[in-house]
Amino acid sequence: MDAYKAITTKRDTRSYTDEPIDPEVMRRVLQAGRMAGSSKNTQPVRLIATQDKAWMEELATCGKFSDPLKAARAAVAIVCAPDGSDFDAGRAAQNMMVAAWNEGIASCPTSVHDQDCGRGKLGLPEGWRVVVIVALGHPDPKVPMSLNAKRRPWEEYVRWERWGEPVASSQ
Amino acid sequence: MDAYKAITTKRDTRSYTDEPIDPEVMRRVLQAGRMAGSSKNTQPVRLIATQDKAWMEELATCGKFSDPLKAARAAVAIVCAPDGSDFDAGRAAQNMMVAAWNEGIASCPTSVHDQDCGRGKLGLPEGWRVVVIVALGHPDPKVPMSLNAKRRPWEEYVRWERWGEPVASSQ
Repeated sequence: MDAYKAITTKRDTRSYTDEPIDPEVMRRVLQAGRMAGSSKNTQPVRLIATQDKAWMEELATCGKFSDPLKAARAAVAIVCAPDGSDFDAGRAAQNMMVAAWNEGIASCPTSVHDQDCGRGKLGLPEGWRVVVIVALGHPDPKVPMSLNAKRRPWEEYVRWERWGEPVASSQ
Repeated sequence: MDAYKAITTKRDTRSYTDEPIDPEVMRRVLQAGRMAGSSKNTQPVRLIATQDKAWMEELATCGKFSDPLKAARAAVAIVCAPDGSDFDAGRAAQNMMVAAWNEGIASCPTSVHDQDCGRGKLGLPEGWRVVVIVALGHPDPKVPMSLNAKRRPWEEYVRWERWGEPVASSQ
């Protein structure tokens, strides 16, 4: 699908069917994360993927709102080096989620509130952290995709030149 | 262009031609940022855009490696609320940069090392920060796009189940 359409119709979605994710689709999702740019090409991010339901349930115990992981067909932990930025992690995650949606796969990032839990289970080296774990699966057709999910008005979200300028100033 | 192609061929690019960016393309780029998901839909990000060359030169003084801003035809500051995450800022920025590339527009995030400078010039409210300023422009055809920019090997970047497991373990 056209990139603009994929980007603007992607919604964070928490309910999935039991249908497995095609291995080639998983490969594309992971490759999309790998190709994300990073500060000075330092590539501080790594991906730890799983399609093991029991393992996803286990990882879900490290977050407060991890129900999407229990419902997911795949999960990808976005882990980051000690000196890496969450900004670069967000770039990789968004690439993955848009690439997934391009293949009809819905997704949602879940927070890892207990970092000791997440780091320990994933066996991360000293100082590395789990930024989020992305849940993935075919969207449950019974659950609305909230395609009309509210966004702040354009005039509030987009400004020109300075914070206080109205949108009309330079368009 | 297909979303997967746009995502995997986008490279952070620092040299641009003088050709202006079409207003409809700018609108799409900004809308792509606006539609990015965020933690609990808190939408902590705002965009401050400019196409004013003198203003971009001025903003470039707040970073150490801001030459792309001086060469750019447009710039978008990704600013974030005090309790917002750089992860969500990364999601919005990546949406914008992929949407731009989908229209043939190259881009590069630039860091704002002097936050007082960036916050002051942009007139941000107390506690808000500039995460990056994204430079945008038509790619300079004389400068290689580094389409073969090195990425860490797949086996290093992608792991399965746990940090130590080789990629073959569950594929």
